[in-house]
Formats: sequence, C-alpha cells, structure tokens
Amino acid sequence: MARSSRGVSALTRVLAVLDAFTADAPFLSLTDIHRRAGVPLSSVHRIVAELVEHGLLEPVAGRRYRLGNRLWEIGSKTPGALGLREIAEPYLRRLHDAMGQHVQLAVPIDTDVLLIERLSAPDGVVNGSIVGGRIPVQHSSSGLVFLAFGQPELLDAVLAEGLRPVTSAGPRTPEEFRAAVAATRRRGYAIADGWIHPASRGLAVPVRGSENVVVGALGAVVPNDGSSPRRYTSLLLETASQISHALLRAYLPAGHPRALPGGSLRALVSSSEQSMRYLERKAQRR
Amino acid sequence: MARSSRGVSALTRVLAVLDAFTADAPFLSLTDIHRRAGVPLSSVHRIVAELVEHGLLEPVAGRRYRLGNRLWEIGSKTPGALGLREIAEPYLRRLHDAMGQHVQLAVPIDTDVLLIERLSAPDGVVNGSIVGGRIPVQHSSSGLVFLAFGQPELLDAVLAEGLRPVTSAGPRTPEEFRAAVAATRRRGYAIADGWIHPASRGLAVPVRGSENVVVGALGAVVPNDGSSPRRYTSLLLETASQISHALLRAYLPAGHPRALPGGSLRALVSSSEQSMRYLERKAQRR
Repeated sequence: MARSSRGVSALTRVLAVLDAFTADAPFLSLTDIHRRAGVPLSSVHRIVAELVEHGLLEPVAGRRYRLGNRLWEIGSKTPGALGLREIAEPYLRRLHDAMGQHVQLAVPIDTDVLLIERLSAPDGVVNGSIVGGRIPVQHSSSGLVFLAFGQPELLDAVLAEGLRPVTSAGPRTPEEFRAAVAATRRRGYAIADGWIHPASRGLAVPVRGSENVVVGALGAVVPNDGSSPRRYTSLLLETASQISHALLRAYLPAGHPRALPGGSLRALVSSSEQSMRYLERKAQRR
Repeated sequence: MARSSRGVSALTRVLAVLDAFTADAPFLSLTDIHRRAGVPLSSVHRIVAELVEHGLLEPVAGRRYRLGNRLWEIGSKTPGALGLREIAEPYLRRLHDAMGQHVQLAVPIDTDVLLIERLSAPDGVVNGSIVGGRIPVQHSSSGLVFLAFGQPELLDAVLAEGLRPVTSAGPRTPEEFRAAVAATRRRGYAIADGWIHPASRGLAVPVRGSENVVVGALGAVVPNDGSSPRRYTSLLLETASQISHALLRAYLPAGHPRALPGGSLRALVSSSEQSMRYLERKAQRR
C-alpha cells in the first residue's frame, strides 16, 4: 500500500485508528482518536471520513464514532475465531449448564490469549476475561495450555517479555514458570490458582484440530477454594474431546462418509442438520 | 487515503480483498483472490503481504490464506453487533432452552439483515441463516421488523431494489409487501410463513435500545405447520423486553442507581456481577 512521507503505510494508519477503539472506550471523537492513535488530526479527518463511507465506523451522538457492524461482519468469516466458536458453541452451552461456572474458549495471538467466547452466570466468581479481549499468556491457564501443548517457541517469547505477576500467587521466576508449564503437560490440563484475582481459579484444556494441532483452549473460571478440581477438569477434557471430534468432521473432505453436512461452509457454520444440507445445496447452486 | 491511477482508494482495494473470503469460500489462493476481488494480481500480492504482516490474513496449507483472528478481534469491539449480542446472550440461551427451536438476533445493514447470533438444536427445522451472514430484508421476518418499527426510508429502498421472492409464499407485489409490513406493525411481531423455505416459519420481534430506537430483531425459525404462533411470540416478546431493559441499564450513566456495574465497559461486555465490578475498577486504574 502507498506509504506516507513518514514511511507509515496507509493500512498501518487505518489500523491505528481502528485500534483506538477499545472495550472501555467504544465511543470516540476525532480528537480522542487523534490522541489515542497518535495519527495527525488532518489524517484522522480523512481516514475517518473514508471508514464511515465503507461502514467500518458509524457516527453516534455527540460527534463521536463507534466501530461499525461491517467490521464485525468481516471478522465473522475467520475460521480460527468465529468458525471455531461456532462449532464449539453447542458443547460450550452444555458444559456451562453442567458446571454452572464461567466457561470460555481462547485462541493464541502474539504472546496473549484472545477470548472468543465466554458464558457466565450472574453470580459467577470474578473473571477478568472479556469476549474479544486479550490476557497475557503468562497470566492465564489458557496460556499454560498453549505453552504446554502448542508451538515450542512461545515459551521463549513469553520469558523474553519478562514475568510480571499480577498477584502474589503468580510465578515470579523462569524456573517457577517452567515448572507450571511442565506440570500442565504432565497432568493434561492447566490450573492457575489466583493468578489473576485471589478469589478465582483458572482451569484450561487443549482443543485439537486436524493433525492434532492445538487450535484453542477450553477453560473455566471457578472459585479458588482449595477443593479438588477433578470434577471440573473431567468435564472440560470430555467437552474438549467432543469439540475436537466435531472440528475433525468439519474438515473432512465433503462426501467422506463421516463428514458433517454443509460442504465448504462447515469451517464457519454449525446449524441444525437440515439447515446444513440446505445451505450446502444453496452454495452449490451459486 | 491514497488513490491509485484507477481512482480506487487503497482502502477500497483492501476491502475487496477481504470481501473475497466468504462463508462458503474461507480459504483462498492469490489467484482465487485476484479473480473474486477483481484486483490485479500484482496488487493482490502486495496487499496480501501487508495484510499477513498485520495478522489480518493468515497463511494456511496449500499456499492459501484465511481471514486472521486480528480481524475478529477488531470486530469484537463493535457495540452494534458484538455489544448487543453480548448483552442479549444470557436471555437468548434461556429462550432457546424454553423454545427448543432456532433463536437468533439480527441487525439492519444496507437493505439486508446481518445475523449476529443464532442458537440451534441439531434437529432444528431448515434455517437459511448463518452467523455473520446476510439475508435480504425483503425475505425475512427480521426484515419485516425493521420495516415496521425502524427507519421509514428502508421500505422505499427495499421496494426500489425490486421484490424477488424465493418461494411461492413470499410477497410478489408492492401491495402485498406493504400489507405484510402493516400487519407486522399492527400485531407487534413479524411472521413469514415459508418465505425462505416451505418447511420453515420465521418469527421476529423488535429489540429497542435507548430512546426507544429499534437496534435489533429477535427471531425464531420454527416448523411451518399452520399452528398458532402465540406461544412462541409471547416468549419472543417477553425476551425482547428483557434484553431492551438490560440495554437501557447498560447505557445509563455510570453511578446512576439503576445502572449495571461495569462503567464504560457495559456497552460491550456482560459478565457476572463480580466480574463487571472488577473490570470497572481495572479500567479506572488505567
């Protein structure tokens, strides 16, 4: 893409403008955007006008803007996030009903985990996760899952950024941290007691896709009461195995006897069996 | 943004590349993108390289690409889509449990409805909706809701594009169509018997936000069996009213006695009460 005199590409600036909008600041004025994005005000004017034209930003009251539904629409075509979430969703709901605690699904991104789904009850324990929000790998049980069962280079990257525990319960030294990763690998699930908040215990297990690659972490946030996590971890492991099974069926070649119906749509859509057959026929007619 | 010699802005081309990825074609090669986006192959090379660098595209096997999780992350900050879905989600789950049928939530976009959530049972009736997918306003019960209770100019826009019923049950003339809209306004809910598939009946009711503006449509897809829709529509109306109530509380000024906890996060996040208080304190410390 064209580069400005400062050597920053147009796309980099557009992303800086979009990234100025956060979960705790979803409505911004042009001046807010300029300050938060570090983009000159004249450029902000021009970029915002074009983003509004394409529906990526929407004007709201008080001369402010919010991210537009067109952005959500484009993001809803991501197999790694929405696709995984869509396939996992019925299993997550059943797990939430059985556990009565926060249950969630995360994927790795940089040295963070990105929360793509969370089901909560009104009286659930303190949980720092927001759908669409990130938590550093080093603070979360989902992060331990990616360290123990995912790409080996992740551990070095996390240690390189330095350990910064948020509570006194979190690991402080590389040795303590490596021990937590090793214990996760040995047990088959991750446990983080009070790492984010003293009242909460994070639990997480790997979700595997094709070729046994870990594509996500299925987790729960439960009271940090010193009790055995066994009942919860059994439910998590069982559910993760069901989701992995559904993912494998979604990625089998269409026509394979065990493939889920829905043809090329299966990586992104999970509806009733009749609906999947209907959608598959409709896609083929196009 | 910089315009190329053809007068197309860089952002327009980037969006053409991203829009080449669809629910039934989530994995594309450079040549596929070139063909589907109508962007010259040399530009596709350059744009794709930059999108990969920013995580908006991810390389997959077979020299193909998929939309990246960074895109989903940005889209997850949209109050109109993810925010509404997040606030509505616990109510949708309860409705789905009570009805045992597809339940869904849609927002208006252009002359289409954009499906932002759908909960389905494996044995649900045929439903053409995909999370993140669009259905023309003129074909759907959610569309009737936006026509009857939303922006008045939408009806003219829909009639201007011409009526194209997909089954013999759909309205064929502007008179029939206006009558369906008027009936929706009179009853307070929309009903579309077999408009998309002969076996399915669409039902939808408005979800109102602040200043009573219709921000979404809560719908269900049930068997088109000629039975009274009363039980379903009562449940839909009751649930829509609960969601509207939660939306109003989410947008009350923080500190208001009836405001939900969570401060500026409330437009995008709905977690347990303790979690909302924790997240609010954390956002304030920043």
